[in-house]
Amino acid sequence: MVSEKDCIFCKIVRAEIPCSKIYEDNEFLAFLDIRPINKGHTLVVPKLHCKNLLDFPKAEETDLIEFIKKVANAVVKATKADGFNLGMNNGRASGQVIPHAHFHIIPRFSDDGLRHWPNREYEKGEIDKVQKKIVSFL
Amino acid sequence: MVSEKDCIFCKIVRAEIPCSKIYEDNEFLAFLDIRPINKGHTLVVPKLHCKNLLDFPKAEETDLIEFIKKVANAVVKATKADGFNLGMNNGRASGQVIPHAHFHIIPRFSDDGLRHWPNREYEKGEIDKVQKKIVSFL
Repeated sequence: MVSEKDCIFCKIVRAEIPCSKIYEDNEFLAFLDIRPINKGHTLVVPKLHCKNLLDFPKAEETDLIEFIKKVANAVVKATKADGFNLGMNNGRASGQVIPHAHFHIIPRFSDDGLRHWPNREYEKGEIDKVQKKIVSFL
Repeated sequence: MVSEKDCIFCKIVRAEIPCSKIYEDNEFLAFLDIRPINKGHTLVVPKLHCKNLLDFPKAEETDLIEFIKKVANAVVKATKADGFNLGMNNGRASGQVIPHAHFHIIPRFSDDGLRHWPNREYEKGEIDKVQKKIVSFL
């Protein structure tokens, strides 16, 4: 799918809706999230429509990791952040709101009060079963 | 830095500490987090030591996005997840615990009860200032 008529991020890519653009190349666009978790929160989207990482197009030219590094480095410097989260929610159950794949770059501060999810424990022997099951789907 | 003597993930890469390996190639290794947020929670690490995304080595051969897609697809199928989060914490203030760069692939379920961080609002005109500041560091 090249571009979805009613997708809000496709509309931003087509410049039918304005955005606070940070950076772009032929394949990806970075712009500010208008409702940031912390100010400077930036989104990176592929210009071609796809739903999430599982149907993400193999990049033609762009090294996406290098693209994100470049943007994240500028976000951290500009906001004087102590760190940042890179995140991508895939599917509604994961918190994805706009069904056009996007990475979040969220500047973080030592005193911003944001908490992380708790960790769990495997029962004895359970981790080996989970490992074998995942490997069977590769 | 090729390998850090006392880094726990470097020790896993060197097989001095065992792991529940999911997948690997010449440059990256995927293995189960032993204290998962949800069971099947998988980590992807570069085999060369680096602290976080900002000093991440430019990949020689691996398309890391394709590597993560492959692993995430297997995690989702094996755990029958409704979605997944891809995440990377960069710096202690962001929740990074092990100072060797790593991506989290966390399977998610509609009823898992994990909550996301709240969004904030920009004051009038503020987003333009933030945009200009970030762009000035590119």
